Amino acid sequence: MSNRITQLFNIQYPIIQGGMVWCSGWRLASAVSNNGGLGLLGAGSMRPEVLREHIQKMKVATAKPWGVNVPLLYPNIEELMDIITSEGVKIVFTSAGNPAKWTGFLKEKGITVVHVIANTKFAAKCADAGVDAIVAEGFEAGGHNGKEETTTLALIPHIRKVCDLPLIAAGGIGSGNAMAAAFALGADGVQIGSLFAASEESSAHEAFKNLVVKAGEGDTLLALKKIGAVRLLKNSFFDEVVSAENAGASPDELKTLLGKGRAKKGMFEGELSEGELEIGQVASMIDSIKPVKDIMHVLLSEYVLALDRLSSVSYRFNNL
Amino acid sequence: MSNRITQLFNIQYPIIQGGMVWCSGWRLASAVSNNGGLGLLGAGSMRPEVLREHIQKMKVATAKPWGVNVPLLYPNIEELMDIITSEGVKIVFTSAGNPAKWTGFLKEKGITVVHVIANTKFAAKCADAGVDAIVAEGFEAGGHNGKEETTTLALIPHIRKVCDLPLIAAGGIGSGNAMAAAFALGADGVQIGSLFAASEESSAHEAFKNLVVKAGEGDTLLALKKIGAVRLLKNSFFDEVVSAENAGASPDELKTLLGKGRAKKGMFEGELSEGELEIGQVASMIDSIKPVKDIMHVLLSEYVLALDRLSSVSYRFNNL
Repeated sequence: MSNRITQLFNIQYPIIQGGMVWCSGWRLASAVSNNGGLGLLGAGSMRPEVLREHIQKMKVATAKPWGVNVPLLYPNIEELMDIITSEGVKIVFTSAGNPAKWTGFLKEKGITVVHVIANTKFAAKCADAGVDAIVAEGFEAGGHNGKEETTTLALIPHIRKVCDLPLIAAGGIGSGNAMAAAFALGADGVQIGSLFAASEESSAHEAFKNLVVKAGEGDTLLALKKIGAVRLLKNSFFDEVVSAENAGASPDELKTLLGKGRAKKGMFEGELSEGELEIGQVASMIDSIKPVKDIMHVLLSEYVLALDRLSSVSYRFNNL
Repeated sequence: MSNRITQLFNIQYPIIQGGMVWCSGWRLASAVSNNGGLGLLGAGSMRPEVLREHIQKMKVATAKPWGVNVPLLYPNIEELMDIITSEGVKIVFTSAGNPAKWTGFLKEKGITVVHVIANTKFAAKCADAGVDAIVAEGFEAGGHNGKEETTTLALIPHIRKVCDLPLIAAGGIGSGNAMAAAFALGADGVQIGSLFAASEESSAHEAFKNLVVKAGEGDTLLALKKIGAVRLLKNSFFDEVVSAENAGASPDELKTLLGKGRAKKGMFEGELSEGELEIGQVASMIDSIKPVKDIMHVLLSEYVLALDRLSSVSYRFNNL
């Protein structure tokens, strides 16, 4: 299996592990890279010195390609970028911001740059900024989410239509069937978050992973749209937010209710009722906490079956 | 191309035209059936005598299989069912209700019954009720929408996992790429609404179709969640609803704001600012009003290309 994404990153399978706050430290990222995908450290939840520590551990834990995800809203982003370049990181995924800001700086250092988007307007900005590839993420994804609410099924063909860059589909990729679907839609690779957030190697708290395993359909919804939509697993905090929203809470009131550090509290410290629990819709399909190796094996096996099914005579015709 | 869905309905391609209020009368449904798909009359917006008229016109307009979609919330549904059975309709799609209510009655008359669902709980109810197939519809679909907000990409693999019935994917199917993706996800067919709502043969008002052509990303969103979520194209009425919702409007206040007959006003009479304009996210991909024949041709051509791409060496490997 060799395409633009495997070639760009020099990896075996076009499967990227999304860089996620509180889940994707060196243990998870190195496990994904060692199993043929591309592991990403999620710098969004790391202080600069913590990121440096994880980068140094990654170098020991894997000889395969890997990268770092940097949300461009990070307050002291210059410090992160200094560490990334001085430590010789080769692949950077940027998200939640304008790709024009950092792409040139990173490309000059010889770094492969990928930017995460949720609409075609940003696809054009990515092309102008000179990124090497884009991740297009749909509404079903966990965590922070685009305001258009475009789903992966609707988003990917649209991005493909207006943009020739190597394209990675994200949001709702919870099975090999969905991976095959992403390629049918026009993607060259997939970025997977939730399955890996609930993996053995994820740094998320065990209690959070167990709650993800229990989650059913409709148990994640977008909340806090007035101050930046985020997909959360329902809990007491989520219910408080919805009550406030239904009563017409203002953006300032919602910011006060949210406060600081809730994602850490929920996902990393396991405070399930009052924490912010970011996970995607595919949580409803996750039925156990598995090692990355098993997750990859199931994904790839299902993917091969899905392609075999599509190449059978039932799905083909030649009389157009 | 022959699979469980083409065989069930005795059609050439596993493409169903969704039965839509104010769009899918005999002109649209017969055009779809005459071009190898399955056309459905949308009874939801027809008084009983109007449905009878459309059924009788269908019999003249096509010799191919076709059906009727009946929303189970229809107030005098017994009258509709009487007409459907006395006129000898052979295929009925039911939606928005419990499949246990009418499936037995219709099956006894030898009618093929399909039920529309948005979650796995109803897939089990469909199996118990003895339907012949199910339509699973995701969040990106236009009009009325499930409260779980599960997208088609997340929904179809989950339904497939728990249910063996012939499965039709709906919501977000706006291209041949998406059609191929639906099959990759595990569906046996696709139901398409928006593309046909904006077709030449649709009975929707020309002004509404032109607005759909102009729609961009994020121009449709779910509204009225407190009284039953519906995906609408943004307009003055939509803005009024959002303002009311943001200010904490109660369900009763929203019902009063909605009033009666807004979908007819917007979609059928072309009152674009104050009408209710139901359309799916794929509206952003629709760039002209085309005849059904051309829509089918583009869909099938793109579908063949998508399958060819997936069968290329770039997407295959055998070393698992």
